[in-house]
Amino acid sequence: MPFTLVLGGARSGKSSHAETLVQRAPAPWFYVATAQAHGAEHDAEMEERIAQHRARRGGDWVTIEAPHDLAGALGALPSGAPVLIDCLTLWLSNRMLADADPDLDSAILEAELLAHDGPVVAVSNEVGLGIVPDNALARRFRDAQGRLNQRLAALADEVALVVAGIPVKVK
Amino acid sequence: MPFTLVLGGARSGKSSHAETLVQRAPAPWFYVATAQAHGAEHDAEMEERIAQHRARRGGDWVTIEAPHDLAGALGALPSGAPVLIDCLTLWLSNRMLADADPDLDSAILEAELLAHDGPVVAVSNEVGLGIVPDNALARRFRDAQGRLNQRLAALADEVALVVAGIPVKVK
Amino acid sequence: MPFTLVLGGARSGKSSHAETLVQRAPAPWFYVATAQAHGAEHDAEMEERIAQHRARRGGDWVTIEAPHDLAGALGALPSGAPVLIDCLTLWLSNRMLADADPDLDSAILEAELLAHDGPVVAVSNEVGLGIVPDNALARRFRDAQGRLNQRLAALADEVALVVAGIPVKVK
Repeated sequence: MPFTLVLGGARSGKSSHAETLVQRAPAPWFYVATAQAHGAEHDAEMEERIAQHRARRGGDWVTIEAPHDLAGALGALPSGAPVLIDCLTLWLSNRMLADADPDLDSAILEAELLAHDGPVVAVSNEVGLGIVPDNALARRFRDAQGRLNQRLAALADEVALVVAGIPVKVK
Repeated sequence: MPFTLVLGGARSGKSSHAETLVQRAPAPWFYVATAQAHGAEHDAEMEERIAQHRARRGGDWVTIEAPHDLAGALGALPSGAPVLIDCLTLWLSNRMLADADPDLDSAILEAELLAHDGPVVAVSNEVGLGIVPDNALARRFRDAQGRLNQRLAALADEVALVVAGIPVKVK
Repeated sequence: MPFTLVLGGARSGKSSHAETLVQRAPAPWFYVATAQAHGAEHDAEMEERIAQHRARRGGDWVTIEAPHDLAGALGALPSGAPVLIDCLTLWLSNRMLADADPDLDSAILEAELLAHDGPVVAVSNEVGLGIVPDNALARRFRDAQGRLNQRLAALADEVALVVAGIPVKVK
């Protein structure tokens, strides 16, 4: 803590904004990456996206990969380290595809967020503003994402919704 | 009237926020429920969601079920009664599945909203911020929901968009 | 320039709001329409929507159809002319269905926007706030739309997000 939640849609510029926020603290900055290519169709897109994000960040970032054990990654950070979690949506998706209980996972994550004594910025997608998905798993995911965002927004010192690259203050 | 419109996505916390708003008036509070399990696939999810909402509200609420005749339910309320309509999206969905004319229904609803002399809070989904749905009925629904939200927002004294549990003032 | 970007979901009232903004300048107003019925299923819906938009605007509007060559249409406007582009989402969709490079097209469009010496209002959809689409083309479109919105929002003097007919200031 302090904890900032950065919400936004796909390609809204939320990661760039979150990087800017973390960089207000002195380097080195810790980047906890949750991305994991997990299906044949999405592989190439995801790898390209990861490479783009990595290229944009410079040499003062320490990257930690945590597609599943996000709480463990946070717990292993040096005291006071500024950290960017990018992003909670991919983490939640990885966890649900592994049949984890999203609410239990969220509770464990909250405890680690509260325990970390450096600034934390977490990126998460807002996914509930379209038509109800046909697919039952997509509906379950949408609900779990909404609950996670609510929990973390309640915990956060600041919440921003990024719209077309511009942060709108929510809290 | 006064009339407050609470917009938000799925699992955004809009119902909780709306309950808080209604409870600013003295009890008893009237809860007009529009939910109705209407298809085999969605039945269990919907019943669970209704049970959760009911459990969260306490004993000072009077529940009225109005999956179709929302205007009639509003018209039958005691004078001055504080009322929560939860939600317009399910009501609109029920009406369209019953082949009703959504614009005619909306006009009748508006007249009853204006006629009620107690505070009214209505919950509605924002559903137009995703990709165009493949399905023609989903597109028609999305359009009708957008038109309904515009009409009611024009009528409302206050409009809030709930993002991750936090109300953002729109009007 | 000055340049205003009006974002919103489907049926959010973004076109009406954008028309109001353009009409702050003296008539005649130029309406650059990008709509084009491009698939059997969508034809009738799109034609009806175009007819509705046209009926709402009065006789002081000059309509220019530019489903593809939007930059060319802007370049051909009289000096100082107030112009409404409605909308960038349909234009981007037309371009991607024609296998154009959306980023190259966006760069050309930006140059013309900067070169025009009258007020410009452009309407665009926010499409990234739902669940990830199953369809690869839809995902590519969603990404391209997000990038275009970010670029134009960075360029814009003002950005509004229209929610249920009400503009929320973003920039």
